Parts: sequence; structure tokens; C-alpha cells
Amino acid sequence: MELTTVRELYKNQDKYIGQTISVGGWVRSIRDSKSFGFIVLHDGTYFETLQIVYHDKMSNFAEISKLNVGAAIIIKGELVATPDAKQPFEIQAAQIEIEGASTAEYPLQKKRHTLEYLRTISHLRPRTNTFQAVFRVRSLIAYAIHQYFQDRDFVYVHTPLITGSDAEGAGEMFQVTTLDLKDVPKTKEGQIDFTQDFFNKPTNLTVSGQLNGETYAMAFRNIYTFGPTFRAENSNTTRHAAEFWMIEPEIAFADLNDDMMLAEGMLKYIINYVLEHAPEEMNFFNQFVDKGLIERLTHVASSDFGHVTYTEAIEILEKNNDNFEYKVSWGTDLQTEHERYLTEEVFKKPVFVTDYPKDIKAFYMKMNEDNKTVAAMDLLVPGIGEIIGGSQREDDFDKLVNRMKEMKLNEEDYGFYLDLRKYGSTRHAGFGLGFERCVMYLTGMSNIRDVIPFPRTVNNCDL
Amino acid sequence: MELTTVRELYKNQDKYIGQTISVGGWVRSIRDSKSFGFIVLHDGTYFETLQIVYHDKMSNFAEISKLNVGAAIIIKGELVATPDAKQPFEIQAAQIEIEGASTAEYPLQKKRHTLEYLRTISHLRPRTNTFQAVFRVRSLIAYAIHQYFQDRDFVYVHTPLITGSDAEGAGEMFQVTTLDLKDVPKTKEGQIDFTQDFFNKPTNLTVSGQLNGETYAMAFRNIYTFGPTFRAENSNTTRHAAEFWMIEPEIAFADLNDDMMLAEGMLKYIINYVLEHAPEEMNFFNQFVDKGLIERLTHVASSDFGHVTYTEAIEILEKNNDNFEYKVSWGTDLQTEHERYLTEEVFKKPVFVTDYPKDIKAFYMKMNEDNKTVAAMDLLVPGIGEIIGGSQREDDFDKLVNRMKEMKLNEEDYGFYLDLRKYGSTRHAGFGLGFERCVMYLTGMSNIRDVIPFPRTVNNCDL
Repeated sequence: MELTTVRELYKNQDKYIGQTISVGGWVRSIRDSKSFGFIVLHDGTYFETLQIVYHDKMSNFAEISKLNVGAAIIIKGELVATPDAKQPFEIQAAQIEIEGASTAEYPLQKKRHTLEYLRTISHLRPRTNTFQAVFRVRSLIAYAIHQYFQDRDFVYVHTPLITGSDAEGAGEMFQVTTLDLKDVPKTKEGQIDFTQDFFNKPTNLTVSGQLNGETYAMAFRNIYTFGPTFRAENSNTTRHAAEFWMIEPEIAFADLNDDMMLAEGMLKYIINYVLEHAPEEMNFFNQFVDKGLIERLTHVASSDFGHVTYTEAIEILEKNNDNFEYKVSWGTDLQTEHERYLTEEVFKKPVFVTDYPKDIKAFYMKMNEDNKTVAAMDLLVPGIGEIIGGSQREDDFDKLVNRMKEMKLNEEDYGFYLDLRKYGSTRHAGFGLGFERCVMYLTGMSNIRDVIPFPRTVNNCDL
Repeated sequence: MELTTVRELYKNQDKYIGQTISVGGWVRSIRDSKSFGFIVLHDGTYFETLQIVYHDKMSNFAEISKLNVGAAIIIKGELVATPDAKQPFEIQAAQIEIEGASTAEYPLQKKRHTLEYLRTISHLRPRTNTFQAVFRVRSLIAYAIHQYFQDRDFVYVHTPLITGSDAEGAGEMFQVTTLDLKDVPKTKEGQIDFTQDFFNKPTNLTVSGQLNGETYAMAFRNIYTFGPTFRAENSNTTRHAAEFWMIEPEIAFADLNDDMMLAEGMLKYIINYVLEHAPEEMNFFNQFVDKGLIERLTHVASSDFGHVTYTEAIEILEKNNDNFEYKVSWGTDLQTEHERYLTEEVFKKPVFVTDYPKDIKAFYMKMNEDNKTVAAMDLLVPGIGEIIGGSQREDDFDKLVNRMKEMKLNEEDYGFYLDLRKYGSTRHAGFGLGFERCVMYLTGMSNIRDVIPFPRTVNNCDL
């Protein structure tokens, strides 16, 4: 079918004004008087709508006037400039074909629906303004991330989803199995008989692709992952989902400074990309979801990010302990209130906090010379707190083995990982960006359920 | 660290010849004589290697001469043109720092290893020529696919991985659970007590994002998915993996012809992209993996794809039944031998087979007027057979319900899907491309285990 999109009409209106064209889309609203009527049409390709004018000269005028919100129609007519109206043009319909009717019970009427209500109709909510904006921006952010890394010749690596190991050593994981749950086979000793399971051993859904990613960085030098990760955490908050996407770049012959430059460059790239490619959507968020959003993002994109060590940060925060719910001292992990204070009040821009105490960080992070801190970094941004966490990796075989012993990790489970330190080890670093958190940050949406098409959370796995 | 990449040296050699630069990488081979030696260095950024010449004037000459294959080093020296050698330039090293040694037991020595052996060291195999080529091309294909759809303003939708439904109605699926497998809780009636499971109901890993994707096509008009899918199929073949990635575009206000044009355009786009962006890798495949690959791909990229109905195809194939292992007649599904005969012998180019009997296709495909066939299409390509399968979807509520009844599907499970036919239904279509099959097709690799970084197959879930 040769249909012109609404996006195309807005982008190249000079080409189409005065022309007869065909457009397909869905009725957002309709009002009629005796001899003519107006339809506000949305075709899904562009945030803005298109006004259709129809007349009683059309043979199916009565039928059209009775259309319900949500109906799908195809209009043929002339695109006419409307310099005095709020919309730049409209279609004077010569013919309207009804593709698919709707009903008076259509769950999306022309009124304000709450986000909570819309969550109950996740198959229909993308038809609303808010979710049109959210999910187009989500798509653009994903593409901007690919573009950023591919332009720099990074190799995109698909790390596995089903895994026999627990990368972080401590995740709450979903089990994956083909065993009959009603009658799980057991060995003579009463253990689960995993020889009958699909993979011949217990398997889980991954919590991170990092360790696998490192093996590829030691081959391609610069790689990134972008895929789903899972947490079976019983947290019913606005920031936790059981299934979410992560981006995990890993760079070899690189240290923590290179890592921070990569993260800073990426975040600025994404912001600029979205502001440029989705101005209508971003204006919508700025106006209706999070006033000040565009100013904040523009500021971030043009700031040189700050740098502070964890030890310095604690000194700063301790002076303000009276105002914190959780008091800080050296050795404690930072809470969102501390992170936001640092980035919003102290630095007034994004800030990297580096060199955390080893005891609050993962086993694979590179030990600093003080033997107390590790070469880790968290990027804190105004309005949200931590958005990126990364580190230089321990590339010394002996130090890594020692650290694993201290943390009671089983060396045998990490043979492949230790091999990377045995055969041509080199300094390398990486970070993780939670994709949904990034989408929330760029749209101002405050509940993770509203930035995932079909969110999975505790007790919720609809559609 | 300011290191120049080997890719950069090859792309802009004029800029670097005569300059002193630093390069980091891994030793592919090393040979020395009394007063000097040669190192072939690979830095992971480019398919070609870089020759390093070092001399006994260097204080660590003895140490360097003893380096094993696989060691990581950083070289500082002058890039010198070598017009008489087979490589265009080399580095005259002034200084070589050893980042990480290797050992004589390094599993990748300078000799030919079998693909079978390399599968046992999936964390090291990306360091070999073959897998450097495979996984860079895999990355480029992924990006080309995003680029193709994003340039056309398609919205990238992340459909869920964990699902409460079985999209195809018949997949063998992996169960996802947090129940204690050693002691699965039961209800009084002896059923599994899913109220104690994370999602409060049985859940599985998805076999397709299509049905979810359709809900977004009815909002954004043009969308695509690109994510992992799973099959717990007990098939130990060179073409089956338990975890693989799929691309599933879905287009609204579009019919089967639009769908085929989209698929044809996509495949040509990917081929051209890879030939342009990975000429070294593609030449390698053409020379060592699949002679004739480039000619075949170039031919496909410049052909107008053929079209034939299933019914016509059966007529053609029946004449050749004597030569087939499986004889065909109207109503039988096509096997790879039939598909390859059609595309390689009859059409000598890619061909779409359309309008299959309804009984061998899924419930959601649009019934043709003959009431016997559905608006389905499979794209067959030389050398492989089916690479893409798609269809126009049944958009008529009553017809879809009838078909579901015929196929004994439970209407209640598909309420959201039926809603799409109730509220503004419109003709729409889509297809699925198995990403790994696409990578195999473009590289000539013949085992799916060799195009997935960490493959998951029956009894195999390593790393």
C-alpha cells in the first residue's frame, strides 16, 4: 500500500501541500456537525497528529460520523495548508475507508488516564501520547548506544542468557529447567538428578555478561554487550524489575580513566542524540512529566563531569550527616540521598566517585596500592544518583586468586576467568549501564514499569 | 593510555609513516636471531596483523626473545614503510613493555586448530583468525539490521523474555522458577503451588516476540524486535541452539507484498553493509571457509528475488520427486532439499514461496479467499534454504476466533491479541529472521556453535 506517513508530511510538508495523498492511521478523536466533521488521526510514525476534514458529499458520511475512538481508517484527499490554525495543515478527505472499527468500550478514551490504569492494559498503552513518547525514545536511546560503540569500532558481543555460573557471586537468580516440577527426579542420594535436565546441570538466568565480556575484550580489545539480565529480587519498588536490559562495555589496554572517559562520552552522546532525534517527545516530557528535564540534560551534555574519591566524598558528606537519614562514615556504602547530595548540591553536575573500599565492591575489581580501596567508579547524575558503575579489573593472577580466596569463591568455577590473567593479561576496565534507568533518566519517568513494554516484577508477568 | 590501534594504522597509514607511536597487542608469533627479532602482533581492532622489529640494543632484549605466543605487550617505536615486504609497514621498536606474559602451554599455538577443539575453549577462540572474523561480522550484521530499521523510523521494541504464554502454541519451552526444586511446594490437591513462585504462576522463556510485537505495531505502525529466544528442543544438529537471537519486524497498514519487500530490502542491505565494512574478514571466509561465498552474496544483493506460490512450487517439485529423499505432494511441508532445489536449480536466486496450506502454518496467519491457504511467505536462499519466514496476520476478529477454535487454542489466553482485532484492526504483516542462521549464511560457517560466542545446546552450557 502506498500510504504517506504523518512523519513524512511534517518533515517535507512543502512537497505535499496541494497534493492528493493517502494516509492510514487511528482515530484519536472525532466530532461532526450536520454536513462535515473533523477527525484527529494518529498513525504511529510521528508524535504529532493530523487533522482530517470530511464532508457529507462522501457516500459513507453517516458511517464515518459514527466511528469510535481507536478505529483504523485510510484517508485519501488533498493536503491543505492551514496558516491560521494551530496545526500547519489538514487533509480535505475525498474518500475514507474503514479498515477496522472500534467500540464505545475502547479502553482509551479521549481523557487523562492514570499510569496505574494504563499498566493494566500494557497491549494498548503504547497508543497514548505518554507511551508513544516513552517507547520511541527508548528505541532511539538503544540505537544511539549501538551507534556510539560501533562508530568507535567496538564489537557487539551477545553474552549468554542461560548460565551455569553466578557472575556477581551473590545474585538472586531464576532457575531454568526442563525437569518435571510436579515430580522432580532425584538421585539415590536424594539430590536433584540434573543429568535429566536439558543442560545436564543446574542453570540460571544471567545477572551480568561482564565476565564473558572480558574474554572477548581480551581478543577484540574493545567490546560491548547489550542484552537482557535478570534478578529474582523480591523488591517491589519503582526502580526494580526482574527482567531488564544492560549495556556492559569492556576495554583492554585501558585503565579506570579511560573507562570514565568512555562513560562520559557515551552519556553525552545519548543525550544529544535523543534531543536531536525526538524533539517533540522531549518537549512533551519537559512539559508534562518532568519540568526542567531538557535544561538538566542540556547542562549534563555540556559539563565536564566532576571527579572525587570515595574518601574525599565521605569527608564532604560527613559534614552534612545531620541531614541524612543514613549517616555515612568511611566504609559505608552510599545511599541515593548521599549520591544526590553530592551531584546536586556539591558538584551541581555529574560526578564520578572513585576508589571505593574493597569490602563493599566485587571480587574482580583492581586493588589499589593502599590495599584498602579498589579502582572502581560510580557515575552520579542530578535527579537520580548512580547511573553507571564500573571498575578497572584485577589483571594480576596472584592478586585475583588471593581476593577470591578471601571472598570464599571457588577457583574451579572461574578457570576461564583466571586464564585471561595467565595468557597475555593486560590492564582492562569496563562498566555497566542499566538501560531502563537510563531511559528513566532521559524521559523523567519515575516508575520502571512505565519504561518497559511488558514489565516483569514480583507477582507480575502479564502478556 | 594513548595507544594507536592497528586499524587506525591501516586506515590512515600516510599519517603515521615516519612517526613514533605506541601500540598495544598480543603476540601471534615471535622469532629471533642473535641481534634482532620479529613479532607478529594482533591488537584485536583489525583483522590484519602488525610486524614489530626489535633489536638487542633494548635492555630487555633477552626477556622479549623468550616471550610466548599470547603475551600482551606495548611497543613504542617508529612506523616504517616496507614497500618490498608483503606487509605495508612495520614498527621499529625502541621500547617494548611486557603487560602480561603467556606460557608455553598457551592453548592457541601458531598452527591450525580444529573448530571442534576450539569449541572446548570458547573463552580463547575469539583470539583466532576464524573467530575474529566470525564475531566481528556478527557484530556488524547486528548493527546493519538496527540501521536498516532505524533509518526507516521503525521502533525497536524489547519484547519480554520471561513469559506466561506460548506464542506459537506448541514450543518446547524452558521453565523459569524460583521454587525450591528439591522440595517443590504443592497445594492440597497435589498440584504445584505456583502462588509461592516469583510470578505467582508458571512462566517460561519466550519462543517468539511476535504477538507482543503486534501490539506495538498497532500503536507505532512499524516496529522490530531483536532479542534472544529459546527452544528446549532435544535436537543435537549443526543448526539448532537452545538460545538464539531473532529479529521480528511487524508492519501495520501493510500486506504480504509489503512484508516481502521489507525482507528483501533488509537482506540486501545486510549483505552490502558487511561486504563494505568487513572486506578483510569476508575475503578470509571466501578463501578458507566457503569458496564462492562473495560471488554468491553479491549475486543475491543484485537479484530481484523470485516469487512462487506453494501450489506452483509443489508442481515443480513433484516432477523431480525421484531425486528427493522426501517425496512432496500438496499439503506436505517443504524440507531443506526441496527448498534448495527451488532456489539453486529452478530459480538460481532467492525466491519467496507464498500461500502455504493452512494446516502446516500457525493459527495467526491470514486466511486466503480459497479457505485452504494462508498469506504466508518463506524466503529461500541458495546454499541454505529457508532464511526468513513471515506472514500477513489474520486481522478479522471472527475469522481469528474460528481458527483458534479449530486449533483448540484457549481464547482466554489470547485476550490481548484479540483486542487488537476489536479496536482499530488493520491489515498487518511481519516476519522472523533467525539471527544465527543469518550469520551462518553471510560467513559460510556451517555449525551454529561457531557463530555464537557461548553456545547453549543439549547438555552444553559452558561458561
